Amino acid sequence: MPNDSRTMSLIAFLQAQNCSNYVGSWRHTLSMTDFLTPDYFTRIARTLEDARFDMAFFDDRLAMPDIYGRSHDLAVRHGIRSVKMDPTPILMAMAGATSHLGLGATYSTTYYEPFHVARLFATLDLMTGGRVAWNVVTSLNDSEAANFGVSEHLEHDLRYDRADEFLEIVTDLWSAWDSDALVLDKDTGLFADPAKVHRTDYAGKFFRLNGTFPVPRSPQGQPVLLQAGSSGRGLRFAGRWAEVVFTAYSGKDAGIAQYQAIRRAVADAGRDPDTVTVAPAVGVIVAETEQLAQEKKALLADLARPEDGLALLCEVINTDLSGRPLDEPFTDAELAQMSWHGLRDRVIQLSGTANPSVDDFVRYSGRGSLNEGATFVGTPTQVADQMEAWFTSCCDGFVLSAASVPGTYEDFARLVVPELQRRGLSKTEYAGSTLRSNLGLPITDSAKAATVEVGR
Amino acid sequence: MPNDSRTMSLIAFLQAQNCSNYVGSWRHTLSMTDFLTPDYFTRIARTLEDARFDMAFFDDRLAMPDIYGRSHDLAVRHGIRSVKMDPTPILMAMAGATSHLGLGATYSTTYYEPFHVARLFATLDLMTGGRVAWNVVTSLNDSEAANFGVSEHLEHDLRYDRADEFLEIVTDLWSAWDSDALVLDKDTGLFADPAKVHRTDYAGKFFRLNGTFPVPRSPQGQPVLLQAGSSGRGLRFAGRWAEVVFTAYSGKDAGIAQYQAIRRAVADAGRDPDTVTVAPAVGVIVAETEQLAQEKKALLADLARPEDGLALLCEVINTDLSGRPLDEPFTDAELAQMSWHGLRDRVIQLSGTANPSVDDFVRYSGRGSLNEGATFVGTPTQVADQMEAWFTSCCDGFVLSAASVPGTYEDFARLVVPELQRRGLSKTEYAGSTLRSNLGLPITDSAKAATVEVGR
Repeated sequence: MPNDSRTMSLIAFLQAQNCSNYVGSWRHTLSMTDFLTPDYFTRIARTLEDARFDMAFFDDRLAMPDIYGRSHDLAVRHGIRSVKMDPTPILMAMAGATSHLGLGATYSTTYYEPFHVARLFATLDLMTGGRVAWNVVTSLNDSEAANFGVSEHLEHDLRYDRADEFLEIVTDLWSAWDSDALVLDKDTGLFADPAKVHRTDYAGKFFRLNGTFPVPRSPQGQPVLLQAGSSGRGLRFAGRWAEVVFTAYSGKDAGIAQYQAIRRAVADAGRDPDTVTVAPAVGVIVAETEQLAQEKKALLADLARPEDGLALLCEVINTDLSGRPLDEPFTDAELAQMSWHGLRDRVIQLSGTANPSVDDFVRYSGRGSLNEGATFVGTPTQVADQMEAWFTSCCDGFVLSAASVPGTYEDFARLVVPELQRRGLSKTEYAGSTLRSNLGLPITDSAKAATVEVGR
Repeated sequence: MPNDSRTMSLIAFLQAQNCSNYVGSWRHTLSMTDFLTPDYFTRIARTLEDARFDMAFFDDRLAMPDIYGRSHDLAVRHGIRSVKMDPTPILMAMAGATSHLGLGATYSTTYYEPFHVARLFATLDLMTGGRVAWNVVTSLNDSEAANFGVSEHLEHDLRYDRADEFLEIVTDLWSAWDSDALVLDKDTGLFADPAKVHRTDYAGKFFRLNGTFPVPRSPQGQPVLLQAGSSGRGLRFAGRWAEVVFTAYSGKDAGIAQYQAIRRAVADAGRDPDTVTVAPAVGVIVAETEQLAQEKKALLADLARPEDGLALLCEVINTDLSGRPLDEPFTDAELAQMSWHGLRDRVIQLSGTANPSVDDFVRYSGRGSLNEGATFVGTPTQVADQMEAWFTSCCDGFVLSAASVPGTYEDFARLVVPELQRRGLSKTEYAGSTLRSNLGLPITDSAKAATVEVGR
């Protein structure tokens, strides 16, 4: 959304666990170990709100890593995502410690039910005064399936077909109560106007639902939709639904192409690309001098053990690679079976080979090593320069990944944000109290487009 | 658990909505209308903690009432449970405003998945420092089924068979991490001991699950189990699982028999009845003088409209009674089909007829009118006398239902609790920081009884 007063959205990428998405981050000196308490998370929330982040959101995975070697042994021993709490109670703990910071959580369209997700997020949105986002994902591996009594995860395109129906229902439920439906007149006893509360009757291929949603609207109308689909069917899904697109670039040039592709997908779905915030994940290693920053980077690289990255890779490609030679290329058939098309395609592109090896995947997938092309290293000025270059060419904001928690966020808030604010690139005050007002998104409060007869 | 230093558990019965379980309560002068904000709930939480309540818990129903007249019209117009938020975000808002109050939420074993419920409540328990209870229910009506794409609710005994499997899985998952499994050694990189983290492999009639639970134990080991099964199969279920039994008595004499039946069910399941807290729902109408209390009671009775009570009754017996003559007795076949056996049996008993009418149900079911036999009316001394008489004969505590929110809780805290404390019947200080410590329940932290090989 290019214009002169445009400011970047700062978004923090959080994990409801002991580590960030960077392998070994819990062993970093600047990482705290009280991750099983609310303090660990409220501390981050306050830092982010002080720095005027628009939002923090939690990823999720519905299983402990146990595909590598067909065991949880390594994941538990090395603390590689062996803890994975439900993100929503943590979101509420952070809400209690802040007043403006937007808060998002990942919930799966594959293993949850639309009524449940709609009601949970509508309630979260009310209890935070309109600050909530839902990160819509499809679940892609067999460990997750096994926790829900399903023997195999759904095939890629089917997952998105199911997710489309899921979103059609959830957005319809969120529109059940007109914003002026409540009357609350104690004298006459009129609680709400039944003509302004709309029933949902849905029959699809994956879901059926008949009923009236029991949660009125929040101050921002409905939660913000965050989504990360990046490839083929997933990109089409994001184009249709996402209000914030969480993405990953391998560098600025690739970013320019991807930014255009995402905006095109939004336009193709009949929506205005300027109403969608596109934010790639980036790492930031900042210090008082360039040399210090490089030393910090080297320290960080030491924390990552190749075996750990390999174990995480096994989760996302849903294959046990523990016995496979690292340099053996994946066959076409193996590549076709991988669940996460966006990741697979990125590795093929970056490695320059149609049949990348395990080594290529560890190196280019962002699992187990720094994503060099999307890591800004240097002084505050140097980092701000790089962010400005991306912001003016290929994104509307950034999703900051942490190498240590809360270290990365504190460094960024203390060193980089003042420089971004000085340049007018990031906000010094929140525009309003809801997440939508801070993201510049419209507040939806119109009546449902299609309703069935009420009070039959 | 009779002994001299025994104190009663005070538990508040909350609803994540505009009204209490008493019809028309939102129209009471002492009811606030900001029920869509966290303030409404944190206000109650602080009042309860000041009065040293052990716990507050939320009921739930996964649908808006729409069986009466086959429409949501009346429910919305009169505000009779037309709002029903997810209780868990509200629980967290209350946790942020308190430090000792236990907090419970109802989640259904019929429409949710064991992995999800186990992870959500384990996380809630961590984020509250060990203060959480799960109120285990089975879901019993067709409106709820329709929100989950199911055409009919499960038959009574099958619901409990499913719930048994659900609990077997959830308690196994909660035991996955031994209490000393975490090591957190940054230098050696040992996060946790894999031999102290146990995998779950379960195959039942309703559920299958294979995986390792990704949430370590909370300070109280695992959430407290609250349950309300009271009849036949449901009582057997409570006997097996409940740590707190939420029940309903029609009066003290009936209570004495029911108390013994519950304790017998616990013993029959091989557990010690003295480790289970039995708490009936009661109403309290207290004032400075007896006459004032009676006037308050009359005011309250005026709020309840018979039609509203009838609409709620339709929900719990899952039948549209809008066209049925009020004095027409239910046939044996109709009674046999009712989902909620406990309620049906109570009405049959209290009405003194084997085939009660709609009128009998409205009158004796507690829907739409005060449950006279379990409502204590009078001065603080008179109310305390009645509570003492029950406490010394038929219960271990009370679940306080509200006629106005926060009015009932504030009246009770200000007028009755000091008198109970003076008599040594209720606590003046919390025994510890976890719910288990305040309920006098054991903290479970032993290793799982049965584990399969780790690290195959």
